[in-house]
Amino acid sequence: MTKPIIQTLTVVGVGLIGGSFSCALKAAGVVERVVGVDLDADNLALALRLGVVDEAAPSLADGVGGAQVVFIAVPVGSVAAVVAQAAPFLPPGCIVTDGGSVKGEVVRLCDPLMPEGVHFVGGHPIAGTEHSGAAAAFAELYRGRRCILTPTATTDAAALELVRCLWQAAGSRVECMEAACHDRIFAAVSHLPHMVAYALVHAVAGSAEGEENILAFSAGGFRDFTRIASSDPTMWRDIALMNRGALLEMLDRYCTEFTALRKRVASGDGPWLEEFFHTSKRLRDGIA
Amino acid sequence: MTKPIIQTLTVVGVGLIGGSFSCALKAAGVVERVVGVDLDADNLALALRLGVVDEAAPSLADGVGGAQVVFIAVPVGSVAAVVAQAAPFLPPGCIVTDGGSVKGEVVRLCDPLMPEGVHFVGGHPIAGTEHSGAAAAFAELYRGRRCILTPTATTDAAALELVRCLWQAAGSRVECMEAACHDRIFAAVSHLPHMVAYALVHAVAGSAEGEENILAFSAGGFRDFTRIASSDPTMWRDIALMNRGALLEMLDRYCTEFTALRKRVASGDGPWLEEFFHTSKRLRDGIA
Repeated sequence: MTKPIIQTLTVVGVGLIGGSFSCALKAAGVVERVVGVDLDADNLALALRLGVVDEAAPSLADGVGGAQVVFIAVPVGSVAAVVAQAAPFLPPGCIVTDGGSVKGEVVRLCDPLMPEGVHFVGGHPIAGTEHSGAAAAFAELYRGRRCILTPTATTDAAALELVRCLWQAAGSRVECMEAACHDRIFAAVSHLPHMVAYALVHAVAGSAEGEENILAFSAGGFRDFTRIASSDPTMWRDIALMNRGALLEMLDRYCTEFTALRKRVASGDGPWLEEFFHTSKRLRDGIA
Repeated sequence: MTKPIIQTLTVVGVGLIGGSFSCALKAAGVVERVVGVDLDADNLALALRLGVVDEAAPSLADGVGGAQVVFIAVPVGSVAAVVAQAAPFLPPGCIVTDGGSVKGEVVRLCDPLMPEGVHFVGGHPIAGTEHSGAAAAFAELYRGRRCILTPTATTDAAALELVRCLWQAAGSRVECMEAACHDRIFAAVSHLPHMVAYALVHAVAGSAEGEENILAFSAGGFRDFTRIASSDPTMWRDIALMNRGALLEMLDRYCTEFTALRKRVASGDGPWLEEFFHTSKRLRDGIA
């Protein structure tokens, strides 16, 4: 039998991310008891009934009072507010970590909120499905997936190590990097593509006014290409706001490329276009 | 047994599109003999060996001389040049049709090239795979897929009807529309998305210089999102050049949306961003 690493884990926000973390650690036998906190009472009751958590806390204050580790799995724009609200009730020695997809701003806001003897470790598990809520949670979500932790120079080494062990127990491949580096990477490979797709859907739908056929013909590649434009609007609002700096840099970089391409389409520069498309293909095939 | 509609079909460019048209019509029993023409002698020999065509013509002039129908399945930028070269050898009563993905420019260039008694009908089968060449051809490629024909006011009615029957025999759902309408629709649902994806790959790869991790992390959604940026560079050069007008209109429409989005990211306008993303989601889910 695996020796439990921790006795009590509190998960704030028992949805796909928080609930799956709970399920994974329970399945791995590294936590004795999971307490759930959720603004949505129905979701919390469901999480309890499904065994995603062992206990449903009546409030955030009650929920975190006996925790060794608190996992904040709320929309990234709300992480700091939840941490601020929980701070007075966090017991000494407690470790707080999160699962938000922007890290610089979260770490910058949360670190100073920690009471004496309580430590914060920023995290971002790279996993998800198109479903949400406690019913969507499952123990295998993180298996083989990356989880990025973003410690600072002042992050407690033991706290970092424990959080790393928990994610590894959940099946993740853990990597540490600076929060700013994380945010630049995800601005490029995730946040920019989402913005590009959202703008594309607007442009195409706008052009469809008075041209009904456009929607009929969009069933092919366009539908697949724009799948990510179906992502949760609130989540993406938060990401755009919280990773504004790195995202703006990528938006401008994209705009430069797009403008260059537009110019050569306008001038009918065949050799330049062929080279541009060829380079894209080579770069993209190199990634795949 | 199905009565053959035509005796001799000549396919110029025996690749995926041309070869599959031949296979489909032979399988349907609506053509007695298919003659293949191809600049690539190895590909043509392979087509003959595989039974994709019944006969390999030594030249374009020889290939089209006895044809009732000539199907031009070369890159869209070369359709008019091939038709011009074939024109002196086209027998009276012959029908020429093509499979290019831009129609306005092709029809405008090809219609006046027709000798007396020879008719042109523009076409665009909406089908394809990631493979190319005679070896990739198969009879079922067009089954259930749309094929758009773009007759003009002067298109011969009997020629249009025969081309329609052939595509239907190949399994396609045939629709007629004006070439300009076709080009506007595909500028929106296909050509613009390709341009957007090509620019995106350049922007992300450019940002990866000195940030190796970006390529490592691009294995997820980015790879799927940019699949279309792996499309054939020559084909897309031709499309960008030949559908320049409609494409520029869509590029500018896109630029307007993108610029508006960038501005609200810069100003941190949460409510606007959420509404923009929400509208995208609603529009895109409506399409799917």
